[in-house]
Amino acid sequence: MNTPRFYTLTASCPDQAGIVARVSSFIAEHGGWIFESSMHTDHEEKRYFLRIEIRANSLPFLLAELRERFAPIAEALGMDWKISDSAVKKRVVLMVSRQEHCLYDLLARWQSKEMNIEIPCVISNHDTFRGFVEWHGIPFHHVPVTPDNKEAAYAEVQRIFEDVRGDCMVLARYMQILSPELCRAYPGKILNIHHSFLPSFVGAKPYHQAHARGVKLIGATCHYVTADLDQGPIIDQDVIRVDHSDSVDDMVRYGKDIEKAVLARGLRYHVEDRVLVHGNKTVVFR
Amino acid sequence: MNTPRFYTLTASCPDQAGIVARVSSFIAEHGGWIFESSMHTDHEEKRYFLRIEIRANSLPFLLAELRERFAPIAEALGMDWKISDSAVKKRVVLMVSRQEHCLYDLLARWQSKEMNIEIPCVISNHDTFRGFVEWHGIPFHHVPVTPDNKEAAYAEVQRIFEDVRGDCMVLARYMQILSPELCRAYPGKILNIHHSFLPSFVGAKPYHQAHARGVKLIGATCHYVTADLDQGPIIDQDVIRVDHSDSVDDMVRYGKDIEKAVLARGLRYHVEDRVLVHGNKTVVFR
Amino acid sequence: MNTPRFYTLTASCPDQAGIVARVSSFIAEHGGWIFESSMHTDHEEKRYFLRIEIRANSLPFLLAELRERFAPIAEALGMDWKISDSAVKKRVVLMVSRQEHCLYDLLARWQSKEMNIEIPCVISNHDTFRGFVEWHGIPFHHVPVTPDNKEAAYAEVQRIFEDVRGDCMVLARYMQILSPELCRAYPGKILNIHHSFLPSFVGAKPYHQAHARGVKLIGATCHYVTADLDQGPIIDQDVIRVDHSDSVDDMVRYGKDIEKAVLARGLRYHVEDRVLVHGNKTVVFR
Amino acid sequence: MNTPRFYTLTASCPDQAGIVARVSSFIAEHGGWIFESSMHTDHEEKRYFLRIEIRANSLPFLLAELRERFAPIAEALGMDWKISDSAVKKRVVLMVSRQEHCLYDLLARWQSKEMNIEIPCVISNHDTFRGFVEWHGIPFHHVPVTPDNKEAAYAEVQRIFEDVRGDCMVLARYMQILSPELCRAYPGKILNIHHSFLPSFVGAKPYHQAHARGVKLIGATCHYVTADLDQGPIIDQDVIRVDHSDSVDDMVRYGKDIEKAVLARGLRYHVEDRVLVHGNKTVVFR
Repeated sequence: MNTPRFYTLTASCPDQAGIVARVSSFIAEHGGWIFESSMHTDHEEKRYFLRIEIRANSLPFLLAELRERFAPIAEALGMDWKISDSAVKKRVVLMVSRQEHCLYDLLARWQSKEMNIEIPCVISNHDTFRGFVEWHGIPFHHVPVTPDNKEAAYAEVQRIFEDVRGDCMVLARYMQILSPELCRAYPGKILNIHHSFLPSFVGAKPYHQAHARGVKLIGATCHYVTADLDQGPIIDQDVIRVDHSDSVDDMVRYGKDIEKAVLARGLRYHVEDRVLVHGNKTVVFR
Repeated sequence: MNTPRFYTLTASCPDQAGIVARVSSFIAEHGGWIFESSMHTDHEEKRYFLRIEIRANSLPFLLAELRERFAPIAEALGMDWKISDSAVKKRVVLMVSRQEHCLYDLLARWQSKEMNIEIPCVISNHDTFRGFVEWHGIPFHHVPVTPDNKEAAYAEVQRIFEDVRGDCMVLARYMQILSPELCRAYPGKILNIHHSFLPSFVGAKPYHQAHARGVKLIGATCHYVTADLDQGPIIDQDVIRVDHSDSVDDMVRYGKDIEKAVLARGLRYHVEDRVLVHGNKTVVFR
Repeated sequence: MNTPRFYTLTASCPDQAGIVARVSSFIAEHGGWIFESSMHTDHEEKRYFLRIEIRANSLPFLLAELRERFAPIAEALGMDWKISDSAVKKRVVLMVSRQEHCLYDLLARWQSKEMNIEIPCVISNHDTFRGFVEWHGIPFHHVPVTPDNKEAAYAEVQRIFEDVRGDCMVLARYMQILSPELCRAYPGKILNIHHSFLPSFVGAKPYHQAHARGVKLIGATCHYVTADLDQGPIIDQDVIRVDHSDSVDDMVRYGKDIEKAVLARGLRYHVEDRVLVHGNKTVVFR
Repeated sequence: MNTPRFYTLTASCPDQAGIVARVSSFIAEHGGWIFESSMHTDHEEKRYFLRIEIRANSLPFLLAELRERFAPIAEALGMDWKISDSAVKKRVVLMVSRQEHCLYDLLARWQSKEMNIEIPCVISNHDTFRGFVEWHGIPFHHVPVTPDNKEAAYAEVQRIFEDVRGDCMVLARYMQILSPELCRAYPGKILNIHHSFLPSFVGAKPYHQAHARGVKLIGATCHYVTADLDQGPIIDQDVIRVDHSDSVDDMVRYGKDIEKAVLARGLRYHVEDRVLVHGNKTVVFR
């Protein structure tokens, strides 16, 4: 598989006639070849969203110049926009606790290059997976979190994240509630996997809640973390069927399979710049 | 397809050693041939549930005598129990409003004998479907419901239900909240289809709620009606994927497909005596 | 819901740089407002596919002139293309046999205006559903098919289809194999629902085949009819879980739910011009 | 989670009246407490299948005596039967090649004790994962397979399997066709994950086949290996939705998620003695 290098433009702006024409004519003028494109209009919010992959080698200039030349168009259209480069891997910092399923799953995807990311380090509030992570050649940071040291602990997490120039942080069943400061420092950059089909069963022990209510499907939700617990923009969700014969332990076990699949999908959408956040909702160009 | 006539024993009782032996030995002593059997132990509640289909023609006596002979065993085991006869069709009263999808769906299943039920009448708060229902040879009752006549209206519904000797009532997108009196009169006999994946989005306009929250799956829930709105025991649920491009109207449209499928499944489980209610949860022997 | 009137352009052509720019600039020049747009590049086949909805009232001319003005651009790009008008409902001829589930389902969707179609008539090889269809005010044609009269029967079907100016024909569990002549006369215009997850279980009695093989999921496939039985381009598919306890009859029953859902989805994609056929495959812009 | 120790009886025999009574009375006579039980009658084949978990500490004798006492009953009923002990972990030999997704997935489940198995060794035709496997403290055997050495290679595999007293062998994307001798030596003991929804796309490169056919769902199948390639009894299957925008590489990527989930489920059913094979089909008591 030889996917060519491409630049990905993602943008949103107030809807009006002529947006595609302006953007695509600009690309075409410079000989740019569109590899993949997706558009969406939110007719209620009257807002336009687009994502365009342009083959890098079809353009006669480099990324910096592309950005410079596109800026006036974006400004005229009132765009929130960015352009990323497929040759520059996103740097994903994993946060884990004592459950291995998401960690093993993401490392297998990283190892096999299924996911085009770098993992500059793993941070955990326990030392459990140091050996496993380091065996993969990835630095491991043990940052214990106690009721008393939360502020200092999350300051340390933030220091490490900045130090490794992280692009995003993934709470891979991290099981701790981040400080509001950390949440606010990185809007749209911290992904969590919550082990319920949100908005059902917010907070602690969702499988116990699901079992008590007698639901017939359980789920998992990948969302961006905000300061409001489990209330951030949803990126992806999935469910699996359960029945009366399933105990809470069975639900936990089934749930793991959903959690790792949904987290991996959400993370892939994120690192491929397929997710555009607007308010508390997402546009996901799959 | 020639399914033989059978008697269906459903029962639940405190768990202990020897329950299956007692029940199955009783059946075997009389030459009874078990066609299908399902058991479940709720280890938390220490309660045992069973459902057994016995070929009617393998027994040397009729249903009344079967019940009489089984009663002492049931009493000794502390059972809640009943025995039904596959040759006696359940009488299902449909309650509809102005949406046709569940009505058409259930009449098609009744018409094709896919579902082994009788429909003694359809009751509606609108006259919209009189022609369609009567064309099928089914009596139609128009019982208008206004803010002022609720008590009288539901008394009339109850009168009709009793009059036609209804076994269960199905709210096939009836869109009205029954009176608490009616709910309490028929516990475990009124089925509703709620157009969300409960416990998310209780109450009115669940698709609007789902759209506002930005969920990536929408669902429907078939449950028994209790006096607490949308809080009754869940029989079945299902979901369908949506994304940012789906408006509320799209969700309503997709949702209909889930609603009718889940309601039909739930109703089939109910009329085949596959649902055992315990507290606010169900055991469903599919 | 007040969806505005719009024109839908669907097109495919050899891939090259600048296609979107050409097309969208043409639309923008005339003040055209794009309501929804989807693009796809088949990188293997080096072919480009697009679908654009333009608000009708944003253009200063009517459809005929839009087509005339767009023609030279389409020619320059080597396009297969067409433009349809959302105000002109597709005329869908239903072909049925003796099973009601797809018929009831489609008529409910037509009745509730969920599907933006006209049904100029229903054709059947049996007289079974005459009353039901005519009750809806839809003409019903009984065209018996025997081993001896196939040629004449399908000539009659074609005559009726032409007579009512049908846009497409839907085999809603029609259970007969059309003549090769009829198949060839309407490529991409005849939709079938096959009761298996193709390419598994081609031909007769697929549920029996599935039961014999012991599969754990059964499915249904909506596809365009070609002269090769069950080999035409697939529009949509779905599956449902079964297990050892399900007899062939159970599979038939479950299967109906999948069949009607998949057929309805496939038909909606078709009448909304969301399906572009290329070779034996489809691009479906949902 | 403290699941008590239990003995699992699995059996099948010709159907007749009184089987449950015979078996359950035998258990009850000795004070045996049934923890979970499942029964199934194949009415076509007139064959009865059962699986019963008995709490070990409710019986006044050990497993050997349980087997001895049960043998005459089993013989009288013409049973194929066995009784296993939950305290004795199944010894699962993993066979891998150069793809990591199933290997990581199974090791994570083993590591977290989610799956109650021992992995006495991993065998591979490549040396790729030696380090990873050995890091987990599991012996790794590199047994290269070439067109010329197949017989010797599979003799070596068999020797290792016998040497470690393997209970079953799992082809976790092993990508080689076992010798007919090996297949025949362990009927119902070798599990494979095939990367298609069988019986579609037997043999090599199923995702390429699926892409060429234009299917809208792709799948994976866990089945017992027989000497007929991809024709053995199916244990579990699942599918995932794809569309025109998905390349073969995308399908391979999506497929991995299905493969590992289906293989893990199939293996769990197998090691928990939930799978009963009859002819070329399975009864799976989930």
